[in-house]
Amino acid sequence: MTAIDLSPKAARSGLGPLAPPSGDDAIVERFATVVWSHLIEPGDSVAGRMIATLGAAEGLRAFLEDRRPADLTPKEFADARKRWTPRVSAQAIGDALRVARARGVSLVTRADPAWPAQVDDLGPHAPVCLWVRGRPSALQELRPSVAIVGARAATRYGDHVAMELAADLAGGGTPVVSGGAYGIDGAAHRAALTVGGLTVALLAGGADRAYPAGHTQLIDDIAQHGAVVSEVPCGSAPTKWRFLQRNRLIAAMTDATVVVEAGWRSGSLNTAGHAAALSRGLGAVPGPVTSAASAGSHRLLRECGAECITSAQDVRELLGVTVSSGASADNAPATDDATRVRDALSTRAWRIPADVARRAGMALDEVEAILGLLRLEGAVERADGEWRLTRSPA
Amino acid sequence: MTAIDLSPKAARSGLGPLAPPSGDDAIVERFATVVWSHLIEPGDSVAGRMIATLGAAEGLRAFLEDRRPADLTPKEFADARKRWTPRVSAQAIGDALRVARARGVSLVTRADPAWPAQVDDLGPHAPVCLWVRGRPSALQELRPSVAIVGARAATRYGDHVAMELAADLAGGGTPVVSGGAYGIDGAAHRAALTVGGLTVALLAGGADRAYPAGHTQLIDDIAQHGAVVSEVPCGSAPTKWRFLQRNRLIAAMTDATVVVEAGWRSGSLNTAGHAAALSRGLGAVPGPVTSAASAGSHRLLRECGAECITSAQDVRELLGVTVSSGASADNAPATDDATRVRDALSTRAWRIPADVARRAGMALDEVEAILGLLRLEGAVERADGEWRLTRSPA
Repeated sequence: MTAIDLSPKAARSGLGPLAPPSGDDAIVERFATVVWSHLIEPGDSVAGRMIATLGAAEGLRAFLEDRRPADLTPKEFADARKRWTPRVSAQAIGDALRVARARGVSLVTRADPAWPAQVDDLGPHAPVCLWVRGRPSALQELRPSVAIVGARAATRYGDHVAMELAADLAGGGTPVVSGGAYGIDGAAHRAALTVGGLTVALLAGGADRAYPAGHTQLIDDIAQHGAVVSEVPCGSAPTKWRFLQRNRLIAAMTDATVVVEAGWRSGSLNTAGHAAALSRGLGAVPGPVTSAASAGSHRLLRECGAECITSAQDVRELLGVTVSSGASADNAPATDDATRVRDALSTRAWRIPADVARRAGMALDEVEAILGLLRLEGAVERADGEWRLTRSPA
Repeated sequence: MTAIDLSPKAARSGLGPLAPPSGDDAIVERFATVVWSHLIEPGDSVAGRMIATLGAAEGLRAFLEDRRPADLTPKEFADARKRWTPRVSAQAIGDALRVARARGVSLVTRADPAWPAQVDDLGPHAPVCLWVRGRPSALQELRPSVAIVGARAATRYGDHVAMELAADLAGGGTPVVSGGAYGIDGAAHRAALTVGGLTVALLAGGADRAYPAGHTQLIDDIAQHGAVVSEVPCGSAPTKWRFLQRNRLIAAMTDATVVVEAGWRSGSLNTAGHAAALSRGLGAVPGPVTSAASAGSHRLLRECGAECITSAQDVRELLGVTVSSGASADNAPATDDATRVRDALSTRAWRIPADVARRAGMALDEVEAILGLLRLEGAVERADGEWRLTRSPA
């Protein structure tokens, strides 16, 4: 464990090319967010509150110098210090920054134009900074965007639907965000890349590492054409906790989360829960009720008010990208008098209007008027005062 | 066309064994409902209002003698008379009654204990009487009951799900109502019969006729063990109008309608619309979004607030037969401190608590406490002050 030097010189030296040209205060503030990203686990609201109140640098000094901010209780501050202190290591921070530079991982903070302001909806649980492999400006292009997530153990059906949705949406200009995992996530990323659309992967571990390893090529491709993003420093392992926190970030970064396939206890339901809590759109793709891979999707439809998603158009409606086509929700086929008159006619037998009226249970003059209209449509024909249905030109 | 004789003698003679032993007024009233069922098409609200206000016999006399009831406008009454007059035929009524007696079709009116009072929710559109082949008392056993309906052109998936639902529900004592058609309807009826449960078929044509003809044996079986019901007289053809009106009756007769598979413009959506309008439960079984046979079900989920039905238990919840199991809707897997401690441990490397605390981003004393608890659970093991995860017994 080595002490942290928050001098402008140390900050500038530590950040190297990760610091844009700017004044001493801005450089120190920037370096302090990097330190914070090492000290805390994602979602640490005590850190979030200290940074919001004091700024990253001054908050960090308060922690290092054991000065409790007025809005924290003694217990909150003491507990937090006990959490953070074991991680105070200039060595570890320096190592991670060297990895970031070597791997071309950029640092994006709230001070940067690329910062995706929608993640601030997480309040004190928002990330302190983001590490981006690829194009940081991709983060600015996510309003609107959609998260397409789901089971690692996807079925061919799920893969197919994820690809169809992602290709249609990304191809139409709506970026597709996912978690880079096997199954649904990978299918969505791949399809978006295939159509030349924007896709962004949010990882639970460091942005320098491909996880899962089998997706090394895919994640490299995403970084090359879009962005691979994490809130934990380079070198961080993708722990279970970080997966859950990554899920909250997927939900926060996007305007809607669509779950394609998910088992009854899938982690995708966690992402969906965050989307609902953040008042983001939430959709689920149904599947056969006999498929365990769709049980979680159906649970979202039943219990969480998720929209039933059957097409990319449904997703666009969820995003409000286009309004509903205005198609009437009126399900009833035409049930008017013309139906009753047609019912009372035959394609074979010729019938007089009085007979048609009796069969239809309608007044004779009504029947005669409708027969006239149907004749104009070519639906019926008349001969010698008798009527029958026109045979369709089969 | 022959005149209608509403004398007690004529009524008693016309009804024959279809009249229970009762006084003259009751017999005439009963016969008058039969006449009404000949004069009108299902759902005729002017007839419904006249019968509600004046009674069937007196309403009929008012029509035959051209005496307008006070609550009908001159136009309403004149239009109705023009509809009904072509059907005034003692001959046709007598013929239909003879067929009913020959085929063992019973007459159920509002005066009978078997009358299913829930259909009166249709108000003036309620049927004037019901014709029942099979056991009329089955109509009393439909609270609660479920309608399982859907596409004639069902897929194997739809057939399978309809059978699973119907067998579970009917086997568990919840009667299954459907329309006797090919596809979903037939699968539901068959499965209910197979498990010895009650099933009722509502037909669009006369109860004496099997429609479709290919379901003659099935409809006979339903009549033998349950009931085959229609509101139109024996001999009536199943016209398109009557199918639509039959659908309203299926919805009204049951506590919930479940659509298993339905195309985008399926007639099942008409039944579903009636169920929703009558404040009955409405459920839809999802399927692959790639299947046109599920497009109507998904439409109900998207546009009509239908419940997503994945199992018979879901239907029971819709019916309120059992309350929800109380399972929490909280989707989040456990995200507590124990998760973070486990994340920081390995099954291979032994680690000291300070190392675990740093990895977990938690205070040392918390980590030590949690390690102690995990050890009690057998989840971790300790040696020489170092800890690791217990390997699961393969």
